[in-house]
Amino acid sequence: MIGIFDSGVGGMTVARAVEKVNPSCPIIYYGDLARTPYGSKSPETIIKYSRQNTEFLLSKGAKLIIIACNSASSVASEVLRKEFAVPIFEVITPAVHKVLATSENGRIGVIGTRATIKSDIYNRQIKDGAPDFKVFSQSCPLLVPLVEEGWLDHRETKMIVRRYLHPLKLKKIDTLVLGCTHYPLLSNLIRHRVGKRVKVIDSSEAVALELQQYLEANPDLAAELSCDIASSFYASDVTDAAIATAKRIFGRNIDLIKVDPYC
Amino acid sequence: MIGIFDSGVGGMTVARAVEKVNPSCPIIYYGDLARTPYGSKSPETIIKYSRQNTEFLLSKGAKLIIIACNSASSVASEVLRKEFAVPIFEVITPAVHKVLATSENGRIGVIGTRATIKSDIYNRQIKDGAPDFKVFSQSCPLLVPLVEEGWLDHRETKMIVRRYLHPLKLKKIDTLVLGCTHYPLLSNLIRHRVGKRVKVIDSSEAVALELQQYLEANPDLAAELSCDIASSFYASDVTDAAIATAKRIFGRNIDLIKVDPYC
Repeated sequence: MIGIFDSGVGGMTVARAVEKVNPSCPIIYYGDLARTPYGSKSPETIIKYSRQNTEFLLSKGAKLIIIACNSASSVASEVLRKEFAVPIFEVITPAVHKVLATSENGRIGVIGTRATIKSDIYNRQIKDGAPDFKVFSQSCPLLVPLVEEGWLDHRETKMIVRRYLHPLKLKKIDTLVLGCTHYPLLSNLIRHRVGKRVKVIDSSEAVALELQQYLEANPDLAAELSCDIASSFYASDVTDAAIATAKRIFGRNIDLIKVDPYC
Repeated sequence: MIGIFDSGVGGMTVARAVEKVNPSCPIIYYGDLARTPYGSKSPETIIKYSRQNTEFLLSKGAKLIIIACNSASSVASEVLRKEFAVPIFEVITPAVHKVLATSENGRIGVIGTRATIKSDIYNRQIKDGAPDFKVFSQSCPLLVPLVEEGWLDHRETKMIVRRYLHPLKLKKIDTLVLGCTHYPLLSNLIRHRVGKRVKVIDSSEAVALELQQYLEANPDLAAELSCDIASSFYASDVTDAAIATAKRIFGRNIDLIKVDPYC
């Protein structure tokens, strides 16, 4: 089974993408809704929560972990790789690979939570792959609450998106990374705002494709992950709003099971 | 010492109001920033956190507790009063007393988080005191993140405030309760929106005044609470944004001490 965790339900955009490309591998999802969001918290706190989430998924039988949260990927993935023996995927590196393969003018925009942007990880990883690329980052802390409210098409959301993206447009970027798993729900709005010539990279899709390639190269692990039981979705808190967002992402009802392992 | 807790730093509006009317009583503040916000979480989770926060404050020497968070006041105050022997104040009842003393036409608006509004507590308490009053409630989940971003005067904030308050204006309310400790930071904007004829009730000020009256009636407790040590401010997570909001509320630098008692 593939273990996927996020601070909330936003990471379900990753779960959905993984399910699409690997339908035979059941998913164990854990959303830390009792402590969501992570993007406004300190690296120390995010690392502690990420460690606990990983332990929970392993206890449920996960053989591979995907950190489906950019904030946790940014600050906790190195620690988790040191501490746990299973393969650990995160959402940053696959998006960076796609950036390097996509951009023509080497001017990249990155949007994310405050924790993700402050970690500077996209900038560092992109520069590692292409030292002459220019990376322009913008934290967009209000987009997560707007998505969680379901304000996907409100005038206020459009204005806030415009305010956040305006400085990046001025930089003449040709590629924009959606560095938060909530943002794909706003992708139409964001695409409209940056214009057709800017390629928009969705880290959810990018990690799903890298996982697929990895499993093709590791057939034994693929066989181990594949089995006939259904995916299950756990959360440390369950609210009507979370259930509604989960349904919006999957296009079907998701049975969120409440668990309370660490807090 | 007076113990005050909140999910984050919003409750510092209560701490500041209490400090103003009882300058001789030091405060122990605890902001549960590692798990903030509460308003979008389930009653069960909010109760658990509130119990832990109270235990922490008592362990630090608090002799009286103020729940400086409307969401926690709404769902957890009865449980805490049963479980703990110290006097427990919350922010709902004092605001309701003020409503009952203030309103002329008996048409009351209440704004708050989703948890507060869903608890229906303002409606029930106001109706207990004045069965013929009409209460119109509106949850405003985006106002907390807007305040935490410091977007106190942005055009988008004004539009969102207008969208939330519009249905209440149509109801011809004469009194509006700010049912969340973050909202006093938007009170100019809110007052402007509802118009001069609507009285705006700030639960932070209301609880500080009720506490003052209570201490005047209980001089022994007042003497026990009063001492010569400085107030202290603890938080389960500390970020730059929290420090900035704390400074905005108090008008001075607040030294936030990181503690990690329960998560």
